[in-house]
Amino acid sequence: MKLNFRILILAVYLVTGTAINVQAQEISAMQAPRVVSPEVNADKSVTFRILSEKATEVTLNGSWMGFRETLPLTKGEQGVWSVTTKPLPASMYHYNFFIDGVAAIDVTNPHALRDGTRYASLLMVPGEESTVFQLNDTPHGNISQVWYNSPSLGTDRRMYVYTPPGYDSGKDSYPVLYLLHGAGGDEDAWTSLGRANLILDNLIASGKSKPMIVVMTNGNAWQSSTLRQIPGLPTPTRETFAQYQGKFEKSLVEDVVPYIEKNFRVKADKDHRALAGLSMGGGHTITASINYPGTFGYIGVFSSGIFDANADMAEMEKKFLALKESGVSTYWVACGKEDFVMESNKRLLSVLDKTGFEHEYFENEGGHTWANWRTYLSMFAPMLF
Amino acid sequence: MKLNFRILILAVYLVTGTAINVQAQEISAMQAPRVVSPEVNADKSVTFRILSEKATEVTLNGSWMGFRETLPLTKGEQGVWSVTTKPLPASMYHYNFFIDGVAAIDVTNPHALRDGTRYASLLMVPGEESTVFQLNDTPHGNISQVWYNSPSLGTDRRMYVYTPPGYDSGKDSYPVLYLLHGAGGDEDAWTSLGRANLILDNLIASGKSKPMIVVMTNGNAWQSSTLRQIPGLPTPTRETFAQYQGKFEKSLVEDVVPYIEKNFRVKADKDHRALAGLSMGGGHTITASINYPGTFGYIGVFSSGIFDANADMAEMEKKFLALKESGVSTYWVACGKEDFVMESNKRLLSVLDKTGFEHEYFENEGGHTWANWRTYLSMFAPMLF
Repeated sequence: MKLNFRILILAVYLVTGTAINVQAQEISAMQAPRVVSPEVNADKSVTFRILSEKATEVTLNGSWMGFRETLPLTKGEQGVWSVTTKPLPASMYHYNFFIDGVAAIDVTNPHALRDGTRYASLLMVPGEESTVFQLNDTPHGNISQVWYNSPSLGTDRRMYVYTPPGYDSGKDSYPVLYLLHGAGGDEDAWTSLGRANLILDNLIASGKSKPMIVVMTNGNAWQSSTLRQIPGLPTPTRETFAQYQGKFEKSLVEDVVPYIEKNFRVKADKDHRALAGLSMGGGHTITASINYPGTFGYIGVFSSGIFDANADMAEMEKKFLALKESGVSTYWVACGKEDFVMESNKRLLSVLDKTGFEHEYFENEGGHTWANWRTYLSMFAPMLF
Repeated sequence: MKLNFRILILAVYLVTGTAINVQAQEISAMQAPRVVSPEVNADKSVTFRILSEKATEVTLNGSWMGFRETLPLTKGEQGVWSVTTKPLPASMYHYNFFIDGVAAIDVTNPHALRDGTRYASLLMVPGEESTVFQLNDTPHGNISQVWYNSPSLGTDRRMYVYTPPGYDSGKDSYPVLYLLHGAGGDEDAWTSLGRANLILDNLIASGKSKPMIVVMTNGNAWQSSTLRQIPGLPTPTRETFAQYQGKFEKSLVEDVVPYIEKNFRVKADKDHRALAGLSMGGGHTITASINYPGTFGYIGVFSSGIFDANADMAEMEKKFLALKESGVSTYWVACGKEDFVMESNKRLLSVLDKTGFEHEYFENEGGHTWANWRTYLSMFAPMLF
């Protein structure tokens, strides 16, 4: 147990108070002054610190910055590099250090986030705006990591299922929101970066949302689970994407929905099924809903749209009309003004307009960010059921 | 979404094949040759690689090495540092890079492990010995992240509950193993480093273990959850440990067991309750079992023992006699020959001998390591129920 050897030694020593063979350097290493990072200051600026005598360059990229921007840290006394940002709006952010060019998480920060195969450290700048996705003193729902067989994809796959507070001890049946991630993520994304479970906890506790089950699948049809991914596996190719086009949507409706309805206490009809997704998952949402009209009564498309500029729009309109006929209570579309998918988003809005499909559209500041997707879920969940 | 922006761009491009505004450098960055790390070679030696033009020193520490040992990487062409180990026995390991002295996970490795507040990268050297804790093509149980209220500790807390394959769709009741982690870890440790869910999946699939529920709590009585831990929080002091001594054990028996028996389909009697733990969790196991005789019919103590050399042994023997009287089917003790807790372990064995407490003892190579704890669980689970 290399990872916690030192703390264990300390713990044994502290718990028992007895003279076990504790080596002095272990204890003194524990007691040595350590840097604190990140530190949120009173004015909501944030100080980042990292300890390295030997590094020649340390920089930082955070999710409040541009994608290519880096913030240089300055080396101070005793090898401590640091930088302080300008005051940041209350929100949740993620960041990486670059130590001599190598991306790294912040080892002094207990909270790392996984997005598919990449890791970053979490920064929470607390405030009124972050209340809705913080871990507050409310009842908490559970997250189950559920393996299921997918006949459509010919493999076992993993999904996360949020059950609301009271589910385990009760007998009620609940409506279900199927919530889809974007490219690069997997079934973990909506809880780690998206805080979907905490958003639901908070909305349910305040009475703004009805208690519901939230199902978060893995939208990468070519993989069983990131857990099986071998280091060095090449990025999916154009052929891979082409080969699997439409297959996730099929597995969602034909495999996942029946599995959930068999294994969880749910209300199994259109008016108690919602579907929403971000980016690639918004594309999945559009496709699954038009290919299976009458399945989902509530639809949310976040930072997405109709990606294919050469799509057969007459055919698309026909499908949207069939979906409209099937009875959709809410069709909600949201996009950031600076989002690079704006053209695709406009294409979706245009089809909705042309087909007279009743919908609501929300546009806000910012781009293709988790900050926006947390906001969108916080707005969409209260509209459901 | 800084984390997966590049992959998203690629995905949009690949899925649609249309001329969205893809910036060439994004795509070429994705297509640039990347290092592969770790790479398990045919002879089971392992090559680690990291890309840095600027670093002056890169080293590595892995769990197959001594705690203070480091393996230097050598800088080769195009800024790629690398090192190849000697052949390693088939097992699961963890490792960290040190980039100019800064501990880091391996960014090219999709699998990081969390142990309390520290992160490392995972290395799997596959072989017959690792079969029992690999993700194989068997039915998989689910892991639920469950929040519960602990009146004993006055807070809400989180635990992981493994339910065996078939639990959700069935009606059967199951026996329960309560499985405790060591100092420095939390409720995540037994599934991430310990692979407890996969060990149970594999043992149940092969018929070696009965289907059971496994409850993995957070043994740090002074915290609600690592999720609430603020960066820079000082290590618990001697006073903290003293203040909370015995309180986790109380909360386990008085809060956790009733919660599980109310909310899960379990067989709620001594003969269907097992308790096991490693290191600090082994200490918790000893204390909880003697303080609550008649609660657990199966007991496992891994790499632990009676830490306090000045304990009142007469009092201790009295408690062990009462536990023995209550009826314990299996008392199993395991320790590595090089483990630094060997003296504590011997103290436990001596009390068991003196009180004529029927028990089994397993001693193997190695020390205080997850490699041993995975082995111990693989041996202990088949003895249960």
